[in-house]
Amino acid sequence: MGKVVATISTSVDGYVTGPDDGPGNGLGTGGERLHHWVFGGPWTYDAEPTGEPDPVDRAFLDDAMAGLGAVVCGRNTYDAAGTWGGRNPWDRPLFVVTRRPHEQPAAEQGFTFVDGFRAAFERAQDTAGDRDVCVMGGAETIRQALAVGYADELVVSLAPLVLGGGTRLFEGFVRDIDLERTDVIVSPWATHLRYRIVR
Amino acid sequence: MGKVVATISTSVDGYVTGPDDGPGNGLGTGGERLHHWVFGGPWTYDAEPTGEPDPVDRAFLDDAMAGLGAVVCGRNTYDAAGTWGGRNPWDRPLFVVTRRPHEQPAAEQGFTFVDGFRAAFERAQDTAGDRDVCVMGGAETIRQALAVGYADELVVSLAPLVLGGGTRLFEGFVRDIDLERTDVIVSPWATHLRYRIVR
Repeated sequence: MGKVVATISTSVDGYVTGPDDGPGNGLGTGGERLHHWVFGGPWTYDAEPTGEPDPVDRAFLDDAMAGLGAVVCGRNTYDAAGTWGGRNPWDRPLFVVTRRPHEQPAAEQGFTFVDGFRAAFERAQDTAGDRDVCVMGGAETIRQALAVGYADELVVSLAPLVLGGGTRLFEGFVRDIDLERTDVIVSPWATHLRYRIVR
Repeated sequence: MGKVVATISTSVDGYVTGPDDGPGNGLGTGGERLHHWVFGGPWTYDAEPTGEPDPVDRAFLDDAMAGLGAVVCGRNTYDAAGTWGGRNPWDRPLFVVTRRPHEQPAAEQGFTFVDGFRAAFERAQDTAGDRDVCVMGGAETIRQALAVGYADELVVSLAPLVLGGGTRLFEGFVRDIDLERTDVIVSPWATHLRYRIVR
């Protein structure tokens, strides 16, 4: 089996979105700065981002993709991303955790709706085989992966900002977990922190 | 004037103490791991820590001390630390923010109790002159320094753990602040992140 990597971008105050996130407002007010590292600088929700990542961030992304077999995300993330324009942006199967699996989009869009985190995770792991599964958020989905002990690694891309509101990654999470920091990647736009989850 | 540096240790989920912190239980249940980097490994609240920091952490501490003119902390931190055994552990004036300044301890202990954050901060800055002021916590005191715009830098020593409860550094903080990451120091026990506060 490959690794299970929970990976997400947060602000220094621990938010994965700014205030008022959702369809039409993506990562919330000011939250687009969480992903400056993805596009090599400022972008807006009004237009398709066109920026290229810094070489350091590009290498980080390429490294994550190299071993990847399948992706899991939550329905809110899928919706907030505007369904990525109606097409799975990864060159890997993407399983969307939802309570409304009957809303399954057309097969050619490349998304698989699954009822509940465990079921989505199991589908992803079956598909990935020896390759890695990436749990990419949102916050609730990451918390579920950590709470049930499925995640082997937690990767936090820490953006240099305080959002002062939004969706907290660890809201309501009450488990105590020891981590081992295995890598730190410093780019102009973020600090990528890789932790092994010590069970 | 020197810089004003707000500096604190947090878990990956943003807590500066574990659950049930306070007198007799220091940094809360499991919270002593936040400061493994200070003592080079495990320690307990039951005995005076005797461990030495790793050379990387030692250099980080020495660097902070080099320019330091005065320190500000909150009363809860002072109490939770067991009043540091009744003696100011820094070789610098320490101003304690409290609503009960009349409880001022004996002068030879080296603490100055001041009524309110602003007053304590101004006393510290007067004392420090061209040297730096360190605002060392707890969470509420750091938030006050950030909220009123007094802090020039925020230094977060990120310990490799998820606490799942305790005192959140950014609880109730609603300002949006741009940061510029100016340094990352990677020790075996923590990731020290230095940010300039962009006003």
